[in-house]
Amino acid sequence: MMISVVAHRFRLVPQTLSPFSSPSPSPTTTRPPRLLFSASSSSSPSPMDAQIGQPRFMEFPHLSVVHRNLMVEIISTMEGRLGSQLRPPTLPPDVQFFQNESGTSQGSLYIRTGDKFSSVDLLLGSWLHCELPSGGALDITTLVTYLNLSTDAPHFLLEFIQSSPTSLLLLLDLLPRKDLVLHQDYLNTFYSDTQLERFRKELEKLPEVQPYFLSSLYLRPIFSPTANLIRIDCSRKEEGEAAGQGSMDEIIHDHIGPIAKEVLGIWLDQCACRVGGREVGESEQALLGKRDHLIKDTAVKIDLVSNLPRLFGPDVASRVISAIQEFFDV
Amino acid sequence: MMISVVAHRFRLVPQTLSPFSSPSPSPTTTRPPRLLFSASSSSSPSPMDAQIGQPRFMEFPHLSVVHRNLMVEIISTMEGRLGSQLRPPTLPPDVQFFQNESGTSQGSLYIRTGDKFSSVDLLLGSWLHCELPSGGALDITTLVTYLNLSTDAPHFLLEFIQSSPTSLLLLLDLLPRKDLVLHQDYLNTFYSDTQLERFRKELEKLPEVQPYFLSSLYLRPIFSPTANLIRIDCSRKEEGEAAGQGSMDEIIHDHIGPIAKEVLGIWLDQCACRVGGREVGESEQALLGKRDHLIKDTAVKIDLVSNLPRLFGPDVASRVISAIQEFFDV
Repeated sequence: MMISVVAHRFRLVPQTLSPFSSPSPSPTTTRPPRLLFSASSSSSPSPMDAQIGQPRFMEFPHLSVVHRNLMVEIISTMEGRLGSQLRPPTLPPDVQFFQNESGTSQGSLYIRTGDKFSSVDLLLGSWLHCELPSGGALDITTLVTYLNLSTDAPHFLLEFIQSSPTSLLLLLDLLPRKDLVLHQDYLNTFYSDTQLERFRKELEKLPEVQPYFLSSLYLRPIFSPTANLIRIDCSRKEEGEAAGQGSMDEIIHDHIGPIAKEVLGIWLDQCACRVGGREVGESEQALLGKRDHLIKDTAVKIDLVSNLPRLFGPDVASRVISAIQEFFDV
Repeated sequence: MMISVVAHRFRLVPQTLSPFSSPSPSPTTTRPPRLLFSASSSSSPSPMDAQIGQPRFMEFPHLSVVHRNLMVEIISTMEGRLGSQLRPPTLPPDVQFFQNESGTSQGSLYIRTGDKFSSVDLLLGSWLHCELPSGGALDITTLVTYLNLSTDAPHFLLEFIQSSPTSLLLLLDLLPRKDLVLHQDYLNTFYSDTQLERFRKELEKLPEVQPYFLSSLYLRPIFSPTANLIRIDCSRKEEGEAAGQGSMDEIIHDHIGPIAKEVLGIWLDQCACRVGGREVGESEQALLGKRDHLIKDTAVKIDLVSNLPRLFGPDVASRVISAIQEFFDV
């Protein structure tokens, strides 16, 4: 979904960002690729790597180690459970990694579709890293997995939007596929019985956490009532405590990480790998398909069509958006 | 709707409330009725008044003057615009005003239905005042106007829940009647074009204001993406400033009041008195009716059925709930 690439940007990024006080490497510096995900590719780069000479999706080269490890663990868990149902990625190299002319904006896209026996429609991962003219950088890391019409169970979304070492937005939710006013049994099954609310409450209690309202009114209704939509601000630590990436890493490690993994576990057990009980009738499929289509279409229009061109230039943006739309069928 | 009578209560009301520091009359003391709304009834009490000897709905006897004046102005404006379409109230006196055996809980209900040419289904106003065993009181003031199936335009809701002179919840929204993911044109017409978001943003900026999450997952999806669901906390004023009802009244007078009036104006112009363009086809009416029914049913079940009995005793609660259900047809 790659929600809100720059819809957030203008709220998040002040004209002058304060210099990074974090001991971790500056996000504006491209680190040498660190190959965490696949031992084999780390020792013998694939032709694609040689060809574009850039880090691939799983490397998350601009995130802190703690943040990167979390993303790798989440994707690893998801692919571990769904792996045999997922087709290998087929994106061309220039969409697997892309950048603008000056190299100040970089991105990576990763897509796998479900096979014909799977309830998975599409797994989409991405990271974007954009150096800002005012200094600092914007880093957006997304993992969204859409289910297909064999089930009406919710989609999975995890997104991080970081505009400084002390400011992070988290979007973590199981995206409902039905109108929850009309379908209270659905709300019951996926949101009440699963006790997802406890995670929202746990994060809400942290002093660094504030609820976050997406700037787009069209995106807000896509989320569930237990969605974790929060802004984490570590810049206001009490005197004597260090603010910065260290504090943010602590929050990611101690709170966000465990919760993201639990929510993923619930989604894998109750949605993607649920056995029986959610068969969708033919007439219902049409409505479900229309609603899914609108969710994807909204995300593409609001996030990408309106924002990618100015970050990456029209050609790169068009290439990336077309690649996604081909899978989204929108 | 009388949302969340006590769903909120347990979060709102600490075991020991601090003594009221407000210069306004203590909410635990029943004032002599002040007849603000109708000059004629103020000089010559109706038989009903004589019979039950209690204040009626419009008097809001337990609110601060500022808060009461706002409620009177809001209802006055609504009835001024809709008045000729509304049938006179017909509730029996023992539902117009009710209390528990000891008189520590009091309430008033006010219902008017729309006539056959009106787009109004039902206007429901109420106030509840409950002295708490721990000291202090809970005051809930509600105005909700449901439209009928001649239109799909949103319903109007305004609710205040006050548990102390320094703590107030506000619920102010135009309740959507369609799934906003499926019906983006509806979102556009009633929420984007009307710029309702600016009010939410204005309130969000106040240091005393925090977003509020309804405790019921089943109520949350009823609200729109521009809903004002906030907690106002005046207890943490900076040193040297007075906290209490004075500060709360300032916020009601300077911010909540003007915004509530503007939102009501938008609702009257664009929803209740909108001319043309929202005709609802027969097939659509069935779904709309079902959704409306679920909204009302959820409100009654979550708010009233589970909470009124312990506040007012089973007999009074049953009488009040039956009276509402008769109009709700749930």
